Amino acid sequence: MSLNSFGHLFRVTTWGESHGPALGATVDGCPPGVDVDVAQLQGWLDRRKPGQNKYTTQRREADEVEILSGVFEGKTTGTPVQMMIRNTDQRSKDYGDIAEKFRPGHADITYWQKYGIRDYRGGGRSSARETAARVAAGGLARAALDKLAPGIEIRGYMTQVGPHGIDRASFDEAQIDQNPFWCPDAGAAAQWADYLDGLRKSGNSVGAICEVVARGVPAGLGAPIYGKLDTDLAAAMMSINAVKGVEIGEGMNAACLTGEDNADEIFLGNDGAPVYSSNHAGGILGGISTGQDLVVRFAVKPTSSILKTRQTITRRGEATEIVTKGRHDPCVGIRAVPVGEAMMALVVLDHLLLHRGQIGDGGGRIG
Amino acid sequence: MSLNSFGHLFRVTTWGESHGPALGATVDGCPPGVDVDVAQLQGWLDRRKPGQNKYTTQRREADEVEILSGVFEGKTTGTPVQMMIRNTDQRSKDYGDIAEKFRPGHADITYWQKYGIRDYRGGGRSSARETAARVAAGGLARAALDKLAPGIEIRGYMTQVGPHGIDRASFDEAQIDQNPFWCPDAGAAAQWADYLDGLRKSGNSVGAICEVVARGVPAGLGAPIYGKLDTDLAAAMMSINAVKGVEIGEGMNAACLTGEDNADEIFLGNDGAPVYSSNHAGGILGGISTGQDLVVRFAVKPTSSILKTRQTITRRGEATEIVTKGRHDPCVGIRAVPVGEAMMALVVLDHLLLHRGQIGDGGGRIG
Amino acid sequence: MSLNSFGHLFRVTTWGESHGPALGATVDGCPPGVDVDVAQLQGWLDRRKPGQNKYTTQRREADEVEILSGVFEGKTTGTPVQMMIRNTDQRSKDYGDIAEKFRPGHADITYWQKYGIRDYRGGGRSSARETAARVAAGGLARAALDKLAPGIEIRGYMTQVGPHGIDRASFDEAQIDQNPFWCPDAGAAAQWADYLDGLRKSGNSVGAICEVVARGVPAGLGAPIYGKLDTDLAAAMMSINAVKGVEIGEGMNAACLTGEDNADEIFLGNDGAPVYSSNHAGGILGGISTGQDLVVRFAVKPTSSILKTRQTITRRGEATEIVTKGRHDPCVGIRAVPVGEAMMALVVLDHLLLHRGQIGDGGGRIG
Amino acid sequence: MSLNSFGHLFRVTTWGESHGPALGATVDGCPPGVDVDVAQLQGWLDRRKPGQNKYTTQRREADEVEILSGVFEGKTTGTPVQMMIRNTDQRSKDYGDIAEKFRPGHADITYWQKYGIRDYRGGGRSSARETAARVAAGGLARAALDKLAPGIEIRGYMTQVGPHGIDRASFDEAQIDQNPFWCPDAGAAAQWADYLDGLRKSGNSVGAICEVVARGVPAGLGAPIYGKLDTDLAAAMMSINAVKGVEIGEGMNAACLTGEDNADEIFLGNDGAPVYSSNHAGGILGGISTGQDLVVRFAVKPTSSILKTRQTITRRGEATEIVTKGRHDPCVGIRAVPVGEAMMALVVLDHLLLHRGQIGDGGGRIG
Repeated sequence: MSLNSFGHLFRVTTWGESHGPALGATVDGCPPGVDVDVAQLQGWLDRRKPGQNKYTTQRREADEVEILSGVFEGKTTGTPVQMMIRNTDQRSKDYGDIAEKFRPGHADITYWQKYGIRDYRGGGRSSARETAARVAAGGLARAALDKLAPGIEIRGYMTQVGPHGIDRASFDEAQIDQNPFWCPDAGAAAQWADYLDGLRKSGNSVGAICEVVARGVPAGLGAPIYGKLDTDLAAAMMSINAVKGVEIGEGMNAACLTGEDNADEIFLGNDGAPVYSSNHAGGILGGISTGQDLVVRFAVKPTSSILKTRQTITRRGEATEIVTKGRHDPCVGIRAVPVGEAMMALVVLDHLLLHRGQIGDGGGRIG
Repeated sequence: MSLNSFGHLFRVTTWGESHGPALGATVDGCPPGVDVDVAQLQGWLDRRKPGQNKYTTQRREADEVEILSGVFEGKTTGTPVQMMIRNTDQRSKDYGDIAEKFRPGHADITYWQKYGIRDYRGGGRSSARETAARVAAGGLARAALDKLAPGIEIRGYMTQVGPHGIDRASFDEAQIDQNPFWCPDAGAAAQWADYLDGLRKSGNSVGAICEVVARGVPAGLGAPIYGKLDTDLAAAMMSINAVKGVEIGEGMNAACLTGEDNADEIFLGNDGAPVYSSNHAGGILGGISTGQDLVVRFAVKPTSSILKTRQTITRRGEATEIVTKGRHDPCVGIRAVPVGEAMMALVVLDHLLLHRGQIGDGGGRIG
Repeated sequence: MSLNSFGHLFRVTTWGESHGPALGATVDGCPPGVDVDVAQLQGWLDRRKPGQNKYTTQRREADEVEILSGVFEGKTTGTPVQMMIRNTDQRSKDYGDIAEKFRPGHADITYWQKYGIRDYRGGGRSSARETAARVAAGGLARAALDKLAPGIEIRGYMTQVGPHGIDRASFDEAQIDQNPFWCPDAGAAAQWADYLDGLRKSGNSVGAICEVVARGVPAGLGAPIYGKLDTDLAAAMMSINAVKGVEIGEGMNAACLTGEDNADEIFLGNDGAPVYSSNHAGGILGGISTGQDLVVRFAVKPTSSILKTRQTITRRGEATEIVTKGRHDPCVGIRAVPVGEAMMALVVLDHLLLHRGQIGDGGGRIG
Repeated sequence: MSLNSFGHLFRVTTWGESHGPALGATVDGCPPGVDVDVAQLQGWLDRRKPGQNKYTTQRREADEVEILSGVFEGKTTGTPVQMMIRNTDQRSKDYGDIAEKFRPGHADITYWQKYGIRDYRGGGRSSARETAARVAAGGLARAALDKLAPGIEIRGYMTQVGPHGIDRASFDEAQIDQNPFWCPDAGAAAQWADYLDGLRKSGNSVGAICEVVARGVPAGLGAPIYGKLDTDLAAAMMSINAVKGVEIGEGMNAACLTGEDNADEIFLGNDGAPVYSSNHAGGILGGISTGQDLVVRFAVKPTSSILKTRQTITRRGEATEIVTKGRHDPCVGIRAVPVGEAMMALVVLDHLLLHRGQIGDGGGRIG
């Protein structure tokens, strides 16, 4: 069972542990002839890289991606693309204390219960380091989208840190790259900086909400019933470490709306294509894209490795206390933004390929 | 691509349209020797059946399940189980008006854009009728769980209708079956009855939130990274018609918590197994079950077939208005409760089988 | 695990037992807009139907196919197609003797050892009846090919019965439908008739070799390394009951050839496309179609249900003798011909869809 | 679509080109706690390694395997195992002549037609070098079998080179490792040496037949209908480069047998388990193992890269001649023996895990 794989036709298998020699992504099913610019791939990885500011873990990793197969003379060949990232900063001594103790809120205990193996060097496979491989695969997916469906834009940002949400009225896309939080609201960014400084100093952490939007996605991607676009997006986002909730369009708030309010009314655009009065649906109806923006949100729980003392037990069954020293993220949600973008790119490309396979150039026209 | 299939080892493919001759579920991978009691299966279907009270669609369907294969002398044989439900009430004239018009908020338009086929007899494949097949498959999964992991209980209920949520302090499991809303809070149930009466009379509809809990699930089910238990639960719930958000444990609220607050502290129980001070995690850490209750919530948007007039277009590209007459659900979320339970059963059984395959009787012990 | 499924994008799951109420095929991934003519589907099934002459089992089955979903107004809708065939002639008393005894050479014993369930009514799932569902699915695949790649012809025939092979010099395609053996050599057909009469009277059975050819398959279908066209064809044919060997092109005889002899030399055709001096490769190089005829052969072992006395044991572990009375095939290979054709259609269509998904209109041109 | 993957639960994806930086195998689904001895893995690779004698290609490759993930302190962790082999001898100049010309009988032309990419450095993905990754994965599978089902032995050997077959009466397993051909018949080995010397000197090549036997495989592995053990074995062997035919037990010869002759009669062994009078079935009935030896044969066509002049065309559509200089195998079948063993190990382990998942400790007993 490819339990470490994601995608139907553009199939990504990530591998590697946080403190092993390397990690990476094996991508099977990438169309041939896609231009692969390693510098561009590296650019995506650099956005996720730890240690770039005081709000993310101070672990230093070059996160340099090496392409081992599937690319020849700068183009994909249609065979598997292997992308490897060597781990360089493997100071596992930082984790010595947790070889025996289980961190509350962490996968330590469940990995032990499942596998009977304790990779005490770090989170092992459950570490956020795994997401570097996703970003590499997502970068390849973006390159493939550029060839197959030029004009698709994928953009992620944070909308909430702890109790502090952005003000949608102050949304300014240009702000996103201007602060360490991918925050589209300058006021919120300032507030978050203060808030996170306090948390960081006290050795605590906090959760966050990320939103990812894909623009320019053609209508018709997705498929009933279990290969729905929203099903795959939900799986994609929920598979990211520490994510506890996923929303499409109105999300959980859909519960509060009446049918009258929720209906995105349909009109004819100047080009004869349908336009909608609103996007409560988040760009998906019946599991299939409408052509509107795809809008996905997900909540990331706070990092469980904190300096606060918590009660726990050891592998031997002894009650004890734990304080996790080391280099951790006060708000791991920050680094989840590029990961969410990568997952969006994977899902959109995958469904584009599925659509080509089953439908080809067909599909219904309006008018 | 099995886009209409769900599950890894216990693989369910649903088929059938709302107004075709029949619908059903093809289940591949059911272990042999499971006792199949057709009356019990029928009992699960009856809970989801439409037309049982004034808060759900008045379409009358017997929803009688016929087992065509895979069961011999009351036991599964290990070969595919085919469960068929004939459609009996196919009054498609109710839908005549929508053969040309697209209902805002409905899959009409995206199915057309994708497939170029308009199954104007009803929602076709996108109808909530498809979920009858899921409930049949879920019933079989429960029977398999009874054999393989006796003691697992799966229970769903509604926690919110429109803006009206339950009072957790008044939670009384015994109430769930005492009202038409699977509502665990008698006070909320009364409030919902009034609220929905008003909506129904005005031809409007509203969204809802359902919660499904699985008790007695052993620790160790699930797998990194894309076969996580929460990933599969998110996909399972998001695949249900009209669902727009999925939460595990704290869900979207995890964004508001600090690491200190979110940590479910670990203690030793009397039997030496770990016990937790709380369950913010919803029973899942690192994608693997902790042994605590699995807690999943999902939001269902309001039915899009309403008597309110909305702006839309026709297949020919003409601007028009639409009012959908017919027999519809003022709150389709009500019937989603048994469906959510079914999906929970499918996911838990599937991961139990996966665990047996990869791990056998192994796994780590504590103490 | 979809162990009863076949195909990547055009995914067929067969279900049903030889003496249960019905059997059928669930097809997921059929492109929309394919014309489905039930009479034509029925025509394919009629070719495989038992009881048509004295050389096949005398069981009488109408093998009438009913389409339960996925087709609307004569066209596929893109949603799962369910095709059901009711079993009508279920005289299970014929099998009374084998409820306890294992037939040598039959799946009786392994099904028991695996599942602990004895479906003594007949072969259950291991019966050749299952292949009716494949032929139905194959008929749908042919219809889809007619739409997507018109001009592909798939033709099967027998080349050997027991020790008697056809004379390739006397190959006459027009003969295939003129005898009960799908034999392209009139002389061999006469010889087989005599030979099988003798075997039938003595209660014995014999093996056979079938060959299936697909003409007009475009170059470029297939994919390295495990999704090769020949890999999937080998799996397809080996999955047919009683098949013990599969060959592509030269097949086992490739061992005897030198590289010089085996090389199919390449020339330019009048239209600029490559033409080959020979087809040792059977139309496949590196797992990808060359545009030449696809040529597959498979050997079918003799039916194990025979009137000859053989030594065996019972389920209780007693030594005994067995003679299998009932209605059986003296040469089950005869009915395997339409099944082999169906499997060829499934594989070719599946790879056509895969190619569209990954490659679209791309691929390299010569010249 | 994981077209470069093999296996259901023990899932192997191979990646890499013959003249790229590296190749390897990503293995997902390996049970935890398997002892991994890198020296032992290397031992399997060394058996397949080119350049070991004058009968295989003179390319020199260390074929040193590096484990990048999934193994910690000498044991598998249950997470993906990445095994990488760096290419060291990449003298692509040897291939300069074939950048434009298509080798008859080679995948050059079909890869071009499919992907529009010519990896002229060597066979690229279609090279036999890919099989090194399979042998590494097979070595891991053997280690897992040692833990889960100790006592299974897998042994491959050659039974035919060109027209020269072994004498089964002279079969001596001890001989297999005593000659460069994995030949169990000393007389045949001597004959093959002479025969291949002649071919090599003349720049020609020849085909071969390999047989792989697995002993000690428990009864009950496999599953109807498309997940049959023989279906998967046929796919496994046909997926090896240059294989054109696959046989189980009697194979193609099953066509010649009568039902009476083909029936492997069943008796009771001293331990109450069934014993068989013969093994025409090759250890598989109805797609499920009988407990007898699994016997698989496959034919490997002659290498297409030869010094003989053949007619061909160029990518530009010009008629020309080709003579392939370079370092090639006069009989690539020799190196296919360890690859066939590896594939057998993958299939047996995979079905063992599937059986555990679906059946657990169940299954029927005799007596």
